Amino acid sequence: MVTEGILTTENEDGTMHVSPIGPHVNPELSSWILKPFQSSKTFANLQATSRAIFHIVDDPLLMAAAVIGLCNRTVDSTGMADILDADQIAELVTAEFYPEFGWVLDLSCRWHALTVEQWDVSTPRAVAVCLQSEQKEQRPFWGWNRARHSLLELAILSSRLPMLDRQVIDAERNRHQIIIEKTAGPREIVAWELLNRHLSQ
Amino acid sequence: MVTEGILTTENEDGTMHVSPIGPHVNPELSSWILKPFQSSKTFANLQATSRAIFHIVDDPLLMAAAVIGLCNRTVDSTGMADILDADQIAELVTAEFYPEFGWVLDLSCRWHALTVEQWDVSTPRAVAVCLQSEQKEQRPFWGWNRARHSLLELAILSSRLPMLDRQVIDAERNRHQIIIEKTAGPREIVAWELLNRHLSQ
Repeated sequence: MVTEGILTTENEDGTMHVSPIGPHVNPELSSWILKPFQSSKTFANLQATSRAIFHIVDDPLLMAAAVIGLCNRTVDSTGMADILDADQIAELVTAEFYPEFGWVLDLSCRWHALTVEQWDVSTPRAVAVCLQSEQKEQRPFWGWNRARHSLLELAILSSRLPMLDRQVIDAERNRHQIIIEKTAGPREIVAWELLNRHLSQ
Repeated sequence: MVTEGILTTENEDGTMHVSPIGPHVNPELSSWILKPFQSSKTFANLQATSRAIFHIVDDPLLMAAAVIGLCNRTVDSTGMADILDADQIAELVTAEFYPEFGWVLDLSCRWHALTVEQWDVSTPRAVAVCLQSEQKEQRPFWGWNRARHSLLELAILSSRLPMLDRQVIDAERNRHQIIIEKTAGPREIVAWELLNRHLSQ
């Protein structure tokens, strides 16, 4: 099965790279397979260091910012600074570096430190079979919220924009907007504004 | 905003009543408003005892069983015993009775004990403003999973069946089936079988 969350890897200079990802896992979360595109920075970092930290999250704003790429750039270059300013992004990606594992995001519910054991690079989307070397709870789960789930769907849609028709994008956006307006809180509304603008571009 | 989970109330004989519910809450989960239909057993129990326990859950099988009503009936009367047998249902609703609070479901991630402070019964859907008297973590959150979110949407759809056109039901079911088949584990597949049969009836 697939879980959706945030992966941190280490750049050449040791700084953190943040990326949304959907690892293939078993229900016990003891088996981990990552499938990064070979064109991605995540793939390059994983090849170089053979390790990463996967974060179980429940924050739609972190996911939205990660999908749009706000977490790895200066905010002025994003055209979204009127929705989410540099301080707010810095708060989203506040992280601690554990020398034995890598970068851990403060906001995550739980993190799983992974090491790559085996690569298959025969397809554009590489397959990295991983072993878990550590896991730790950080924060309790807030709970199921339909707006958050819709925002996750819109985040995934955002990551597939070049492959989709405008009609499909607009239909999905309109459908999820109804759910978001019914069930969101203020943080979900900010995530919606980010994704809505990104989907309109 | 709204969170989705499971409410337990106490029947006249002290046994447990299990019901899906979507309380209106603030992001801090310190403010709780329940909106049970006045025709429901949940409403009757809340009026009689003025207390309930709301459970934050991440288990789609518990949610599916609760929405279909499997948790409050003998399984033979449900026509679903070939998908989920009596032992499996008993496991889903394993609960402990706390005399000071009520029935706590083992499977939940966290529970919030609520007492009703104020009623508005001027509309068919009553409004119960609640105070939280206790909360407790039980289990870590598994993580975001698109199949679980789709199953939650189908569970909510199931609870609105009499108000919906067959075309709308089928379109939603087909859309969510694609996500479920891509991202589900074995437990999600059982929940899908339950909801799919219920939606076909």
